[in-house]
Amino acid sequence: MKYKMRKVACTPFDGQAKLHEECGVFGVYVNKEDIGKISPAHDAYTALFALQHRGQEACGIAVNNNGVIKCHKDIGLVNEVFNQKILDGMPGTIAVGHVRYSTTGHPSRENAQPVCITHCKGNLAITHNGNLVNAGKLRRQIELDGGIFRSSSDTEVLAYTIVRERLKCGSIEQAVLHAMGKIEGAYSLAIMSPRKLIAARDPHGFRPLCIGKLMHSYVVASESCALDALGATFIRDIEPGELIVIEDGELRSMKCDIKCDHTTCVFEYIYFARPDSVVDGASVAFARQEAGRYLAEEYPVDADVVVGVPDSGIPAAIGYSKASGIPYDVGLIKNKYIGRTFIQPGQDKRERSVRIKLNALRNNLEGKRVILVDDSIVRGTTCARLVKILKDAGAKEVHMRISSPPFLHPCFFGTDVPDREYLIAYGRTVEEIRELIGVDSLGYLSLEATNKIAVGATCGFCNGCFSGEYPIEVPDTVEKNIFESGIGENG
Amino acid sequence: MKYKMRKVACTPFDGQAKLHEECGVFGVYVNKEDIGKISPAHDAYTALFALQHRGQEACGIAVNNNGVIKCHKDIGLVNEVFNQKILDGMPGTIAVGHVRYSTTGHPSRENAQPVCITHCKGNLAITHNGNLVNAGKLRRQIELDGGIFRSSSDTEVLAYTIVRERLKCGSIEQAVLHAMGKIEGAYSLAIMSPRKLIAARDPHGFRPLCIGKLMHSYVVASESCALDALGATFIRDIEPGELIVIEDGELRSMKCDIKCDHTTCVFEYIYFARPDSVVDGASVAFARQEAGRYLAEEYPVDADVVVGVPDSGIPAAIGYSKASGIPYDVGLIKNKYIGRTFIQPGQDKRERSVRIKLNALRNNLEGKRVILVDDSIVRGTTCARLVKILKDAGAKEVHMRISSPPFLHPCFFGTDVPDREYLIAYGRTVEEIRELIGVDSLGYLSLEATNKIAVGATCGFCNGCFSGEYPIEVPDTVEKNIFESGIGENG
Amino acid sequence: MKYKMRKVACTPFDGQAKLHEECGVFGVYVNKEDIGKISPAHDAYTALFALQHRGQEACGIAVNNNGVIKCHKDIGLVNEVFNQKILDGMPGTIAVGHVRYSTTGHPSRENAQPVCITHCKGNLAITHNGNLVNAGKLRRQIELDGGIFRSSSDTEVLAYTIVRERLKCGSIEQAVLHAMGKIEGAYSLAIMSPRKLIAARDPHGFRPLCIGKLMHSYVVASESCALDALGATFIRDIEPGELIVIEDGELRSMKCDIKCDHTTCVFEYIYFARPDSVVDGASVAFARQEAGRYLAEEYPVDADVVVGVPDSGIPAAIGYSKASGIPYDVGLIKNKYIGRTFIQPGQDKRERSVRIKLNALRNNLEGKRVILVDDSIVRGTTCARLVKILKDAGAKEVHMRISSPPFLHPCFFGTDVPDREYLIAYGRTVEEIRELIGVDSLGYLSLEATNKIAVGATCGFCNGCFSGEYPIEVPDTVEKNIFESGIGENG
Amino acid sequence: MKYKMRKVACTPFDGQAKLHEECGVFGVYVNKEDIGKISPAHDAYTALFALQHRGQEACGIAVNNNGVIKCHKDIGLVNEVFNQKILDGMPGTIAVGHVRYSTTGHPSRENAQPVCITHCKGNLAITHNGNLVNAGKLRRQIELDGGIFRSSSDTEVLAYTIVRERLKCGSIEQAVLHAMGKIEGAYSLAIMSPRKLIAARDPHGFRPLCIGKLMHSYVVASESCALDALGATFIRDIEPGELIVIEDGELRSMKCDIKCDHTTCVFEYIYFARPDSVVDGASVAFARQEAGRYLAEEYPVDADVVVGVPDSGIPAAIGYSKASGIPYDVGLIKNKYIGRTFIQPGQDKRERSVRIKLNALRNNLEGKRVILVDDSIVRGTTCARLVKILKDAGAKEVHMRISSPPFLHPCFFGTDVPDREYLIAYGRTVEEIRELIGVDSLGYLSLEATNKIAVGATCGFCNGCFSGEYPIEVPDTVEKNIFESGIGENG
Repeated sequence: MKYKMRKVACTPFDGQAKLHEECGVFGVYVNKEDIGKISPAHDAYTALFALQHRGQEACGIAVNNNGVIKCHKDIGLVNEVFNQKILDGMPGTIAVGHVRYSTTGHPSRENAQPVCITHCKGNLAITHNGNLVNAGKLRRQIELDGGIFRSSSDTEVLAYTIVRERLKCGSIEQAVLHAMGKIEGAYSLAIMSPRKLIAARDPHGFRPLCIGKLMHSYVVASESCALDALGATFIRDIEPGELIVIEDGELRSMKCDIKCDHTTCVFEYIYFARPDSVVDGASVAFARQEAGRYLAEEYPVDADVVVGVPDSGIPAAIGYSKASGIPYDVGLIKNKYIGRTFIQPGQDKRERSVRIKLNALRNNLEGKRVILVDDSIVRGTTCARLVKILKDAGAKEVHMRISSPPFLHPCFFGTDVPDREYLIAYGRTVEEIRELIGVDSLGYLSLEATNKIAVGATCGFCNGCFSGEYPIEVPDTVEKNIFESGIGENG
Repeated sequence: MKYKMRKVACTPFDGQAKLHEECGVFGVYVNKEDIGKISPAHDAYTALFALQHRGQEACGIAVNNNGVIKCHKDIGLVNEVFNQKILDGMPGTIAVGHVRYSTTGHPSRENAQPVCITHCKGNLAITHNGNLVNAGKLRRQIELDGGIFRSSSDTEVLAYTIVRERLKCGSIEQAVLHAMGKIEGAYSLAIMSPRKLIAARDPHGFRPLCIGKLMHSYVVASESCALDALGATFIRDIEPGELIVIEDGELRSMKCDIKCDHTTCVFEYIYFARPDSVVDGASVAFARQEAGRYLAEEYPVDADVVVGVPDSGIPAAIGYSKASGIPYDVGLIKNKYIGRTFIQPGQDKRERSVRIKLNALRNNLEGKRVILVDDSIVRGTTCARLVKILKDAGAKEVHMRISSPPFLHPCFFGTDVPDREYLIAYGRTVEEIRELIGVDSLGYLSLEATNKIAVGATCGFCNGCFSGEYPIEVPDTVEKNIFESGIGENG
Repeated sequence: MKYKMRKVACTPFDGQAKLHEECGVFGVYVNKEDIGKISPAHDAYTALFALQHRGQEACGIAVNNNGVIKCHKDIGLVNEVFNQKILDGMPGTIAVGHVRYSTTGHPSRENAQPVCITHCKGNLAITHNGNLVNAGKLRRQIELDGGIFRSSSDTEVLAYTIVRERLKCGSIEQAVLHAMGKIEGAYSLAIMSPRKLIAARDPHGFRPLCIGKLMHSYVVASESCALDALGATFIRDIEPGELIVIEDGELRSMKCDIKCDHTTCVFEYIYFARPDSVVDGASVAFARQEAGRYLAEEYPVDADVVVGVPDSGIPAAIGYSKASGIPYDVGLIKNKYIGRTFIQPGQDKRERSVRIKLNALRNNLEGKRVILVDDSIVRGTTCARLVKILKDAGAKEVHMRISSPPFLHPCFFGTDVPDREYLIAYGRTVEEIRELIGVDSLGYLSLEATNKIAVGATCGFCNGCFSGEYPIEVPDTVEKNIFESGIGENG
Repeated sequence: MKYKMRKVACTPFDGQAKLHEECGVFGVYVNKEDIGKISPAHDAYTALFALQHRGQEACGIAVNNNGVIKCHKDIGLVNEVFNQKILDGMPGTIAVGHVRYSTTGHPSRENAQPVCITHCKGNLAITHNGNLVNAGKLRRQIELDGGIFRSSSDTEVLAYTIVRERLKCGSIEQAVLHAMGKIEGAYSLAIMSPRKLIAARDPHGFRPLCIGKLMHSYVVASESCALDALGATFIRDIEPGELIVIEDGELRSMKCDIKCDHTTCVFEYIYFARPDSVVDGASVAFARQEAGRYLAEEYPVDADVVVGVPDSGIPAAIGYSKASGIPYDVGLIKNKYIGRTFIQPGQDKRERSVRIKLNALRNNLEGKRVILVDDSIVRGTTCARLVKILKDAGAKEVHMRISSPPFLHPCFFGTDVPDREYLIAYGRTVEEIRELIGVDSLGYLSLEATNKIAVGATCGFCNGCFSGEYPIEVPDTVEKNIFESGIGENG
């Protein structure tokens, strides 16, 4: 389905530079043989730490100790929210965990996950990565039936939907499977009931989800890098529309009825996922190198050195270098203490805020024709300041290469793309963008090449944010947060 | 209804000394004339600070800014949870606030109030003091209809009940009124909808709730001392079964259908409420003096000085002194820096923990026959240690007088009485208690006198914790927390 | 010596109400028999908690573990600065501790005590209550000899003076004794060397200091209430000019050569010390009752009730009541959660800030002629607001009685009296003050009576803040902080 | 002078992997023209943030506002210790700042810098990077003269030495210059007096120090990367034995008398300094590439890919790749959220602690012969675990190349090398080390090549930690902290 472009005024050239990250989910079921050897809370902590790049706003872990669920979650990074004492106070045999970036809902405690509830048949802890396209419709129906909501997160909609199915069927896994027939959009789920760990992925497989083995026990995680951090063995990706249930130490697989194409989010390969992860059969790092290789083919230029913007532009820069034969070198040094709380200086705020984060290596740039590779341009301002830093360091020419097509459309499946009026590519030609960021040439990866970078992938791709073509019917407008709007009552 | 005493083993003589406090609620509706003059968040802060004695575990404030509800709540004291920046970031025209001691549910963030929800017709912020006796039954029915619960607090049951009524009637105040027909037990409520402030009190009026005027605006609070702190004028107590709604600056009163006796909790006069509050027409401080006066009549003794246990035993000691003619004096000094985080010393923990809190004034006690007045004895251990401190300071005799009858029964309406096996009075005669705490004589206020202390009160009293007779049908057993028990599912 | 009153403009009637408190010191030496039974860090914590009223700005504890001194100190209350983990990490056999209110120096970390230093012959931890009158002169000499100062506290001057004497004599106790011949002013010291605990008191004995026994071990503390908190037995006050050294479990006493009158600060009895302390033979609580008794004699009035301002006005009110026969009652309730961080409300700040802290008991005041007793009036504003609260609560007349003479002069020995232009008594007659605070009559305790209140005291008194007569030569002007003034260098 | 190797038992193969970092200093003097445009506290913050890699234990800033010095310092990272409010509360025209890793002294607040003192002629704020070799001797002499020490840092020795010279000469800069004649060892200083900013570097120039211009104002910093972060222009390195004083907006240079070789610490190029800094004329990043180039010459090997250990091994890996023609690739991904508080997992702690930090990129390693480049091996354990991770990811061969010679000797000039019994190179041949870390071949950069890597450097080098030859007489033993040892006194 094609997203209809409405006319919006083109905004002034300013703002933040990066897309917001996705969420990450994790689950572990400790088998009898491993009790005492695996601490699910500690392992969830380690895994969430490896998935931290998928969400830095909030995080949480719920553990199941003989059917009693204990949950700890808060706003903050994994190593801010948890400490030794908290983890030691969470014994159990099953755990789920979550790192969150708010794609819907306020950045608030109420929206942190896991969402822990009790219902007619027991209790549940739910973690969710993705975005439902029909959450608003489902929410309104639940409210008409007397449901109440404490948050604006669509995970609460998901919880109601599962619980209502549970009333009509014999097991929690059946309930989740039936719920999968009602919810639409992107979701990778790790759910814990009193005796089971359940993992499920939407029929399009928008967001990654994989399963691994740790000693005799099972783990599920958004990305394989979390399995590596635990020393677990990768078994396989969970398939689109598949539900995995682990009970009494045994893993069973079920499938929902919906048949459709497998369309993994291509931006996972370009930016979201960690380079050391393998998603749906394709190495993320290699996909980025491939993007660089295609860029070299599509936009060759005579130059002296290829440099990448740390961290995410590095692999594509190496790929460009290899394909073009132009030497790769380090051109920008990132301050590794950059955190979330840096105080902006008083004067020259904008320019300095980039200089604090990245500094040019004059020795590798001075007098040279430089190819600068980055993964994407969102608003363009950081990009322009970077170019100025390179030129100040003596770069004779700067040729910008972007390892993805221009952003033009919203994402309905979990990526927080700014409103289009803030996108530099919206309403501008490539030549206009080139001029705005002040480079000597500019090349974006073609959509065709983008679809080819994930070498070995067993899936197709959703590239709606670039093409405006989505594999699923999407709303006419991006729904606004109904909790924030505080709609008044009638009575 | 008489609570049936089951046989329980009498426990060893040890444990904590005080009953846990109740919750406190507050609401303010700023009239047009006062906008800019009254900040509802700051006033809620001031009022909750005055109500802090009703609950020290958690607190919260929700403000309504043009229909959008913003809430801040956390575990901690009012001046720990809020600061200038947080309050300044909460503009609005209506607010509700809450201080909590957990009578049901974990001491957790999830259970902090106000409970803020959205429902079919808008949003709500609910604050609740009291305990529902049929919460379990209502909860099970809601779960059977597909409801989910995030906490173990019965306030969530209340929210569902109101919301379900709202679907069937034309206004939120009607919905609350209908809900009052379904819920049973003790409740004093302050509820905020997009355009209204609603206050309601259960048909027995177990817990206090009063209304006042601040300039042209209305405030409701658990106790009149909160009105005093704001400089507001006391209008009147809200009547049992009454619902007050403030909308468009106008106050309207409605009544629910249930007819029954007004039975204010007598322990509010003895211990819970602040002495400077006036509850249902009777001064709390004067009630305590009266309790002392009756004690002097019922248990006279020849002695040299009357001393009270700070802070709550002081007024009754003064009353005893006045009635008996035996001089009142300060006998115990309380360390005014005692907070919640004092670290117990390594050795002699038990005795020292009392010495750190209270020290005897040898000068006023040495060689004297002392009458020591306290409001109640729960487990008896603190009492015994205090007596030892007095004797160590040279008191020749110690005559203990308690300004309430012995605790023997559970409270179903919001007071957290320990399990009966921990109550010193359970299974023991007064003489046995006297010996255990090591005093020369011991007198408990009679039930008859207890019913007379609240001079000027417009109500009768619930004294179920002393008598085992409750004004309402109570459960056979005190229901245990179903969230904690983590009942496994069947499927 | 008489302090010369210079002419200063009389300031507008506004400001804070209370004098700032003094510091408190503590020391413990664990004898061999008690090792493992007494934890010096935990006991210092308990004792400092009991001495918290003497200083709320900063606190610290240093422990000696086989000659290695470990110190923890910070800005904050005792239960904010210390926690279980910190205390458990401070094993040892000797400890000194300190609570501080800044009489000289910034409220900063640098000025927190104990002051821990190394010197030629070892290391030292010094705690100090009082103020040296010749600190400036000594400091300048030390600087001329190449000394450097990290803080503006005169305790650092003390440290240098002791260390320089140590170079010339054979032991640390001799060095302290020699230093006592050089320093002038008020000091009660607890000092720890690698193997000894030393306590010393200035030749006038301005500030209290006593010694007690805990099992086989010795403790020293500013006030006897700290001994009570530990369950220690009071041995005796340390004498003016006396130095106590505890070494190898034995206590030895030495005396410095200076002969002069023993002049304990009379304001310790009126306000500073805890009522349950006994200072130089006199009960503080009884001294306050006596002050009330003398007030009744000096300023009788026909009235219905005597009420005290909590907490420090209560004993004098009881004394007034006993002497006059007019009944004592509770007239004001203090919010017991008042801490240091209460946020001032937006509107009516001044009046409300008192209402939040104190509320009137209408029942005990309405229609009555009230005698209101407080310990002192500093600036007068709080006092005036209190009177208004009483009148608002229906008091027909308010007769103010102050259990000390008017403040008119600075204190050079540790009490932080505001500059005289902020003192309500400066440049005003009693009648003018009476009118300003809005009472029907006003009486200050006479200087003669003040000198008699400490019944049983073995000492005379310094009452310089009332009389302008000091037992020691004082500087012409109160020296300003040279660290703050940041005097520029010449070169 | 050659360090004599004493025999020490060779310890088991275990422990931490990295050398501890150095300190960093900064100073800014705002010229009249720039007042209001440059905030010295904010600029110090930005500069310290850029120098954070030189010390993560503690940090501090002191500002000079019309001669009054205000200081804020604490344990923690720059963005933990400072916030907007603190910086905004530090106006002024001169500032010095410091980031610290404890090379001597406890990791404690007392040792944080700037050290702020008052002395006979005014006040001073001192910041210091380096280590004095005669601090112990100077300290003992100062103590014999009656000096006292609050910390174990040799910066306090420095302060005394300067202040004592100040008494004998006419200006603070003369005093510092004279002090430079008395102190021996490594020091780069930024010192602030009431009207001056002074920067000085020891006669050997062990540690870097440079000067820059920001608008009309001057800044000094340990590394040029701090100038870049501010947008300041690099003027030049401060010369060995040079003292710079900035007063009334003018910069003057003075030189101390000591003549000796300029021997910059070579490890600054190998590991300490940020790659984007230029130290004494040589680019740090290029020096590391050169190290890689020499390694390729000295230890060629037939292989498929060159990978570097992030972050510090990357430039040398690129250099090796360029020189050898073997392709460079990313082989290890570093978790960019690694901070100081990661909780070690319960099981398999050792191996997992590396896996959490670094993960292998299987795609780039599988089936390949890998050259792994790192800057140094200290204890060897991390190195061995990394090799295992590469082999687990399918590397057929691993050839380790180290861009520095083996560590064998202590550093007396500020680098915290572990005791030699913990150094893997101590008492082992290269072949033994190779076997221990499990690689197929191992090559350390030769001492000769090490001396050549800093291309363009205007200095010679100290390489004592590799060679045992120091440019200055060093103590026989590394002096232990006398504060910690708590030497008892005699008396």
